[in-house]
Amino acid sequence: MKKLINDPDDVVDEMLEGMVAAHPDRLRRLPDTQVLVREDGPVEGKVALVSGGGSGHEPTHGGYIGDGMLDGAAAGDVFSSPTADEFEALIDACDAGEGVLAVVKNYEGDVMNFDTAIELAEMEGVDVAEVVVDDDVAVEDSLYTSGRRGVCGTILVHKAAGAKAAEGADLDEVQRVAQKVIDNVGTMGTALTSCVTPEKGEPTFDLGDDEIELGIGIHGEPGTERTETMDADAITEELAGEVLADLDLEAGQEVVTIVNGMGGTPEMELFVVNRRLQEVLADHDLETWDAWVGEYMTSLDMAGCSVTVCAVDDELKDLLAAPADTPALTVR
Amino acid sequence: MKKLINDPDDVVDEMLEGMVAAHPDRLRRLPDTQVLVREDGPVEGKVALVSGGGSGHEPTHGGYIGDGMLDGAAAGDVFSSPTADEFEALIDACDAGEGVLAVVKNYEGDVMNFDTAIELAEMEGVDVAEVVVDDDVAVEDSLYTSGRRGVCGTILVHKAAGAKAAEGADLDEVQRVAQKVIDNVGTMGTALTSCVTPEKGEPTFDLGDDEIELGIGIHGEPGTERTETMDADAITEELAGEVLADLDLEAGQEVVTIVNGMGGTPEMELFVVNRRLQEVLADHDLETWDAWVGEYMTSLDMAGCSVTVCAVDDELKDLLAAPADTPALTVR
Repeated sequence: MKKLINDPDDVVDEMLEGMVAAHPDRLRRLPDTQVLVREDGPVEGKVALVSGGGSGHEPTHGGYIGDGMLDGAAAGDVFSSPTADEFEALIDACDAGEGVLAVVKNYEGDVMNFDTAIELAEMEGVDVAEVVVDDDVAVEDSLYTSGRRGVCGTILVHKAAGAKAAEGADLDEVQRVAQKVIDNVGTMGTALTSCVTPEKGEPTFDLGDDEIELGIGIHGEPGTERTETMDADAITEELAGEVLADLDLEAGQEVVTIVNGMGGTPEMELFVVNRRLQEVLADHDLETWDAWVGEYMTSLDMAGCSVTVCAVDDELKDLLAAPADTPALTVR
Repeated sequence: MKKLINDPDDVVDEMLEGMVAAHPDRLRRLPDTQVLVREDGPVEGKVALVSGGGSGHEPTHGGYIGDGMLDGAAAGDVFSSPTADEFEALIDACDAGEGVLAVVKNYEGDVMNFDTAIELAEMEGVDVAEVVVDDDVAVEDSLYTSGRRGVCGTILVHKAAGAKAAEGADLDEVQRVAQKVIDNVGTMGTALTSCVTPEKGEPTFDLGDDEIELGIGIHGEPGTERTETMDADAITEELAGEVLADLDLEAGQEVVTIVNGMGGTPEMELFVVNRRLQEVLADHDLETWDAWVGEYMTSLDMAGCSVTVCAVDDELKDLLAAPADTPALTVR
């Protein structure tokens, strides 16, 4: 498999250099780490919002650093958690004295290392709170995970909690908003092809030419069902059906949706999925307040997509529509 | 090859439906056409900026419709020019009485059909001007093209000319700015894999597991050289070297760069390319004023990238930094 990389051992380091070179006015790298923080941070008087996890999911999380979203993010090696030391460096660098909210995707490594980092930071007097995102409705436990996995719904947490922090809310309030998104969001994904990690250089799992995997994880972890290839409408109905069954929303509920590309799928196909998704929501008497389509949380070069639905009230709508200015997401 | 589509014959129609469903506040589809226009258009008192071309290059062009960029765009079938009738409907729908600038990528079908549409529109009294983008430095003539091909530099034309039109400039001035970008921009791309069109369902061209194609076109047209796979630094040096040789810039010149993904390449790899690109520019004593990294003009699911360099003066910097609000590009 061919990739635009040099030595696979250097890929995360070189990616981070390339990100800072693209956004020198927005991003700063903490020396001798894989941690990126706001160039203008820490922001006085503001609760800091931080996240992190394995690399290979770009623009997650570094792409969401900036005004109205994250103050910083730690990048692990490909599909590997950052160390507790890196998470601690992240928290320390972002704290402006108002406290720090850590947004953690539910993978055992991330949770364990973030927890250790939080303990260490608290011993140094930093006020830290944590939320754990577990929006993947596909499977209850999986490779690397106890409980449900944290996937693309995380970006809505970054956006809403980031906007709340930008308003000057205190740590409890920022945490409350983050948890409110988590309590109201569900996601399910599918893979048409496996991803290929730079290190291994060949597919992480085998998928036949006429097979797809439903409920796939963002590291290629097994899903719920391996099935024959279906058309986009049928796949969309499966994914949306599972998410809506889990959320169990009342008729008339307003929602935000995300059709998220896994890295190797053309935008054309994501819009084809969005077309059917909006029909399915209308069939369920749900009202789409906003529909996001794009690559928000990828899995290297995997072909496929995920569907996210999040119920929103007036508070979440205001926060999701608030201005943001980051490499990957700008809202005017 | 597996794709998130239904009937291949419906893919453009369903994509356009999915785009409007995602952006009902921004985009409107002209009935019985594949033309998208600004939902709030035509904008009184403003020169209209329009473009179009074959589908499969998303977010080009529909993703750039909105405040500060395009007023509308015609989408052809996959890799096929829109008809003259569709281009004419586009021009008519966008004209607010101040004239229309058509931004045409240099492919024979696009040029011929846009020219016919312009003649028809002018007969109905619409003032239309045209610029032809031919930024691909790789080959002089190619499949579908006399002269150089128009590729990713087109997005800088949309941005700068769109900002000029938004300022209230007249048609001559908007055209002058568009041409100024064209006169100062160069691009070259590479393919690591072939794209697969929905209709054909298999690779457009054969490329061995250890081969890449340099100078590739965005429809898989032949490039300048088929060579053994190289690492990202070597590929970047090749692409940037050809572009810089063509532009022949003076030391100290400020530039905007784009590392553009072809559709199937993870963002991680694009940043690895950007890292080396910025080093190469520094070696040439060029000053990067802004560096764009992302998927701006794709070729379905092709893995690979293109490198664009555009020399900028104060006027172009102001226009490129001006606010824009479109599905694919927002500038605060």
